Amino acid sequence: MTLTQRTANAARLAEQAVVRCRKLASFSEDVGSLRRTFLSPPMRDVHREIGTWLAPLGMKTRIDAVGNLRAIYPTFAPSAPRLLIGSHLDTVPNAGIYDGMLGVVLAVALLEGLEGQHLPYAIEVVGFSEEEGVRFGIPFIGSRALVGRIDDALLEKADASGVSVRNAIEQFGLDPAEIPHAVIDKDVCAYIEFHIEQGPVLENLAMPLGVVEAIAGQTRMDFVFTGRANHAGTTPMNLRFDAMAGAAEWIIAVERTAKSISDLVATVGSVNAKPGATNVIAGEVRATLDVRHSKDDHRSRAVEQFTHSAQEIARSRGLSISTTTRLNQPAVPMSATLTAQIEHAIGDGCVPHRMASGAGHDAMILAEKLPSAMIFLRTPNGVSHDPAESVSVADLAKAIECGLQLLHQLSSHSLFQPRTPSA
Amino acid sequence: MTLTQRTANAARLAEQAVVRCRKLASFSEDVGSLRRTFLSPPMRDVHREIGTWLAPLGMKTRIDAVGNLRAIYPTFAPSAPRLLIGSHLDTVPNAGIYDGMLGVVLAVALLEGLEGQHLPYAIEVVGFSEEEGVRFGIPFIGSRALVGRIDDALLEKADASGVSVRNAIEQFGLDPAEIPHAVIDKDVCAYIEFHIEQGPVLENLAMPLGVVEAIAGQTRMDFVFTGRANHAGTTPMNLRFDAMAGAAEWIIAVERTAKSISDLVATVGSVNAKPGATNVIAGEVRATLDVRHSKDDHRSRAVEQFTHSAQEIARSRGLSISTTTRLNQPAVPMSATLTAQIEHAIGDGCVPHRMASGAGHDAMILAEKLPSAMIFLRTPNGVSHDPAESVSVADLAKAIECGLQLLHQLSSHSLFQPRTPSA
Repeated sequence: MTLTQRTANAARLAEQAVVRCRKLASFSEDVGSLRRTFLSPPMRDVHREIGTWLAPLGMKTRIDAVGNLRAIYPTFAPSAPRLLIGSHLDTVPNAGIYDGMLGVVLAVALLEGLEGQHLPYAIEVVGFSEEEGVRFGIPFIGSRALVGRIDDALLEKADASGVSVRNAIEQFGLDPAEIPHAVIDKDVCAYIEFHIEQGPVLENLAMPLGVVEAIAGQTRMDFVFTGRANHAGTTPMNLRFDAMAGAAEWIIAVERTAKSISDLVATVGSVNAKPGATNVIAGEVRATLDVRHSKDDHRSRAVEQFTHSAQEIARSRGLSISTTTRLNQPAVPMSATLTAQIEHAIGDGCVPHRMASGAGHDAMILAEKLPSAMIFLRTPNGVSHDPAESVSVADLAKAIECGLQLLHQLSSHSLFQPRTPSA
Repeated sequence: MTLTQRTANAARLAEQAVVRCRKLASFSEDVGSLRRTFLSPPMRDVHREIGTWLAPLGMKTRIDAVGNLRAIYPTFAPSAPRLLIGSHLDTVPNAGIYDGMLGVVLAVALLEGLEGQHLPYAIEVVGFSEEEGVRFGIPFIGSRALVGRIDDALLEKADASGVSVRNAIEQFGLDPAEIPHAVIDKDVCAYIEFHIEQGPVLENLAMPLGVVEAIAGQTRMDFVFTGRANHAGTTPMNLRFDAMAGAAEWIIAVERTAKSISDLVATVGSVNAKPGATNVIAGEVRATLDVRHSKDDHRSRAVEQFTHSAQEIARSRGLSISTTTRLNQPAVPMSATLTAQIEHAIGDGCVPHRMASGAGHDAMILAEKLPSAMIFLRTPNGVSHDPAESVSVADLAKAIECGLQLLHQLSSHSLFQPRTPSA
């Protein structure tokens, strides 16, 4: 195939990918907007639709016991390993059409791009049933099943209507007893996921594709500043113990410190004042803090600094401070082997950019058991979880070219060679 | 009377004033806490109770058509003017026992302190039916009636149960048609009100009594900072348009500027972030601003500075800002004549402190028609509108001594001389 042909094919597959994402987005629980939670009725339509794309490739789809769509593109090499490619098929409420779905649509596009060719390794397309955590407040139900992390406690979790995960599985016509068979077998050798970046970094660098080196670790905390609620008219400035002014000073300190630490993000997204009246000095302010970094020690040190500055500010203002840690989740590094391969594949057509993912993804779960990696697509304005979410056809074509290049590269990589049967 | 006798009498009247405030506080709409709104049933008990204190002085109480308690201590001088002394009898929910009530209790104590003596001017005790604005969201219904500012719009205002001011008056057995007769007549020459400070200034200066020079003017505004809501994990610090960080920077600027302007108070008491989630950068933050000063030009200039700094901060951060002015109420100066007299009377026993009132009071309404003035009593910890509200017996005694001194001083002041009938 000439370079021009390759490019033309990728462009055609990219156009088709957009059409397919739109089609999947038409299967929704809500009228007029997209919401598709774990094993909700429109998930059946999604499975059927993807099945119609896979059938011409000779692939049969199966739905595993937690509702993941799985379909194998075989190899004719004996004892060959198997690469998983996929993403999730559930959505947030009022979702965009690319988050998750795009990764599954691109997996199918890559197989089509092989134009009947088979590789020395098999490929399994996977469409996870649950990543967002919307229905049960627990994310990654789909990918957890592949690494054997679905336990009874999770199965008993109920949604807002009192339906448990177990009930939901049964109501969809699946058998919870079969969940152990969803676990990846010994042939599976790696996981690769395409996903929109959901942030503005690539756009800001004018780069279409990014290689994810790590899923950032995350700390979530509450900070409560306590002063003294007083009359806004009768309390002079120098006799106040204003919890709001203290919290404000701290928010600015958090921002200043975060900017001084490379690749750190820290956010105060919610602030609540008590009593919260125009004419009363706030006696208590509760503020949330979200801190992320791809290196856990950087994150821990930053959290220490934020806590220290809250204490210093409180001390200097005669306030008191209390903190509660809600989440402390370590960073998950992606496979160095795979990221190097991806960087090389992207480099064939454009400049690769190594970056951390600030958000969690299924790759984070699969990385527990498998070499895993992610490729990010530039997200216009960084907008995601919103109907305005978009991706350019040109970037999709770049992703497809890069993906096909990667599949060919991996054919000669040691990880993807036939395994000699163990003695 | 010797100085020792005067002091002993004041101490006895002060003790009695505390007992009387406690008694009035026992008449409440709520069980276990004090709430007594406009013409609520316990207001009848208050009227009856105060009547029993006034009867031994030979005074008859009348309840005017908006429910103000009024009783005249006569003079035997012909064509003599009349001084009003009083405060309000309604309370906020979960109130303390001194706010308002104390001013009425002290008025009675002063008459008792005269020990049967009559002055060249009459004194009218007034207990306003409404100052706090709790029941109808409109404050000062009682004092408005005295200056002829009850109109039909106010009478039609309904409380939370749909009962109008007019209905409430009728249900209490009063006649709205009689409201014009509540207006002060031409004999009334001045108004004096004792009130707890409800702030920490006098306590901080270790002074029992303050002379109010003016009721501060007040501006209330909303400031809305708009940025871009984004994912807290995927948006680097340098690509954020964080409305919360912008608002925080402004809150600190407000505090800094307010501290630099003598006697100004400025408060951001309420802040609301949208979407207000731990893991989402705030796209919009709404903050309230309350600004008060006894000089209107100082207040206006400060409001301009606060608005300007919000605009500058928004500009430098790529945010937008919008402001809404909710209230713009000019300062009300107290009578220079009366404040000089009060200062002199306080000076007899302790060091007088001139100050502004940051809160509104009935004196503000009466000042439209009459020379008016207020005397503040030190408020421990500045706590008011709370069951912990208190005042020391020693300070009450000082207030009574000062009040009696003032009544005697005024006997020789031109404002309180008999009027020559007009031709």
